[in-house]
Amino acid sequence: MEQIQERIQRKAAEIEDIIKAYLPEETGLQRSVLEAMNYSVLAGGKRLRPMLMLETYRMFGGRGREVEALMAAIEMIHTYSLVHDDLPAMDNDEYRRGRRTTHAVYGEAMGILAGDGLLNLAWETAMKAFASERREEQNLQAEAVRLRRVADAISVLAQKAGVFGMIGGQCADIEAEGAEQVSMEQLLFIHEHKTAALIQAAMMAGAILAGADRQQVERMERCAYDIGVAFQIQDDILDVTGTAEELGKPIGSDEKNHKQTYVTINGLEASAGEVERLSREAMEILFSLEGDSSFLQELTAFLIHRRK
Amino acid sequence: MEQIQERIQRKAAEIEDIIKAYLPEETGLQRSVLEAMNYSVLAGGKRLRPMLMLETYRMFGGRGREVEALMAAIEMIHTYSLVHDDLPAMDNDEYRRGRRTTHAVYGEAMGILAGDGLLNLAWETAMKAFASERREEQNLQAEAVRLRRVADAISVLAQKAGVFGMIGGQCADIEAEGAEQVSMEQLLFIHEHKTAALIQAAMMAGAILAGADRQQVERMERCAYDIGVAFQIQDDILDVTGTAEELGKPIGSDEKNHKQTYVTINGLEASAGEVERLSREAMEILFSLEGDSSFLQELTAFLIHRRK
Repeated sequence: MEQIQERIQRKAAEIEDIIKAYLPEETGLQRSVLEAMNYSVLAGGKRLRPMLMLETYRMFGGRGREVEALMAAIEMIHTYSLVHDDLPAMDNDEYRRGRRTTHAVYGEAMGILAGDGLLNLAWETAMKAFASERREEQNLQAEAVRLRRVADAISVLAQKAGVFGMIGGQCADIEAEGAEQVSMEQLLFIHEHKTAALIQAAMMAGAILAGADRQQVERMERCAYDIGVAFQIQDDILDVTGTAEELGKPIGSDEKNHKQTYVTINGLEASAGEVERLSREAMEILFSLEGDSSFLQELTAFLIHRRK
Repeated sequence: MEQIQERIQRKAAEIEDIIKAYLPEETGLQRSVLEAMNYSVLAGGKRLRPMLMLETYRMFGGRGREVEALMAAIEMIHTYSLVHDDLPAMDNDEYRRGRRTTHAVYGEAMGILAGDGLLNLAWETAMKAFASERREEQNLQAEAVRLRRVADAISVLAQKAGVFGMIGGQCADIEAEGAEQVSMEQLLFIHEHKTAALIQAAMMAGAILAGADRQQVERMERCAYDIGVAFQIQDDILDVTGTAEELGKPIGSDEKNHKQTYVTINGLEASAGEVERLSREAMEILFSLEGDSSFLQELTAFLIHRRK
């Protein structure tokens, strides 16, 4: 049987093709910013958010293609956030996963514009979900229901990406970096908003597009919260327990940078216990659903219990 | 009779109230970025884009309130573009209209995040147009038509704000600043994309929401192009002919900065002739429409023939 890593890679390659179909042609007098945008999106990555969206959509019985526009959109949002995070005024990173960051290659002004361009393109792309499968002859009741689902899914994506979602987490993260003490409240706020919010958007939008009811969507919101926060605490644990070889980066970097994390505040044992608790809750939610959630369960276990 | 300046000011004050209703509360651990966003939007300004949207909507017979969400959204987009334009890596401006710019007050990182926050909030806000006046009991045909109009209006806004619209113009503008020679093609590209595109979005979205047909929307696209480009050439003319007192800034600054403009390339007389031609074309389009376009005509004349 195919291993989970291989299945993830195969699915990621399929998703990459879907995303590529929505990337702009590098043409016109704005060619530079278009190149910088495509460079940013094609930097690799697990395509985790569109994967979670597609799998949740299918689990709730979705069979259409309107989900594809939103899959591309959420990856563009994730990418722009990395491009702007890497800017000199933010984290000032010249490399990400061994590849030069966008502003390092194209300059700071183009880094800012490429991020803006990707965020705007995300919404331009998301709006295409309204047009897909539009048939004039189909019955109006079905059409109105479909249009409302698309509108609701895009609205959730916008909320989770915004100042009360991901951007709010980035703001709190920047302020925490300059602070002497970081509280558990701040730390969980950052994990929930900076990381979990877009994972919530992915699973909630997938569920809404497939016609899930309000209660089901709320359960996906909770499940995605568990996955996102567990993923981040596991990150903090690996910084202490992992080997440099496994991680591909120096271990203990959080401690050296005097960065306060879930582990430095609560200790290793309590942190591992919290990952376990969140993981179990996410699994229980997935297990309780009617649709086939086997891949989502495997993916969740893989993400949370990874060694690197 | 009320003067046009007074009418514009009165309408701008009404629009300001509409925009304010969509601004976020300054709360939570992301309070800093929320403050920076509201500071940016409340910096004043003529509220020209939402005004053009509302007036076009009414001219085509629109009487609903769903236009309000899009009016707020387009002003947020305009504002974020100014916030990012002012950043050190872009134009590096510490003052705009005598008021400190966002990054000068809140720091560079918050300047970037506030711009991102406003751009994202624009789409979150625009999506609210789907919800307004949603009545479960109303007939489905009318509902499907309304949802499609909102989707089409938001799509046009996204296109005109993006890399093939305003952001494309910003990219070309940055590259032109570093260039020895700027061609007429580049200059018109910048005027069309950096300035006219959002004016086109305003008038096209207003028309679409009110139910204008494709041909009418295309005429608004042309009319808004004329207004936007004429406005920019007039800017270049005033830099040469205006008095410092009228403009509130040093005259001849383009020449001193060796900045190539429509006037430095074509001369004053030809530039004035082009403003006249564009203005006449815009007026003819407005005059040819069935609805009452008297205020739009006055506003256009005021914008194009202003002395400051």
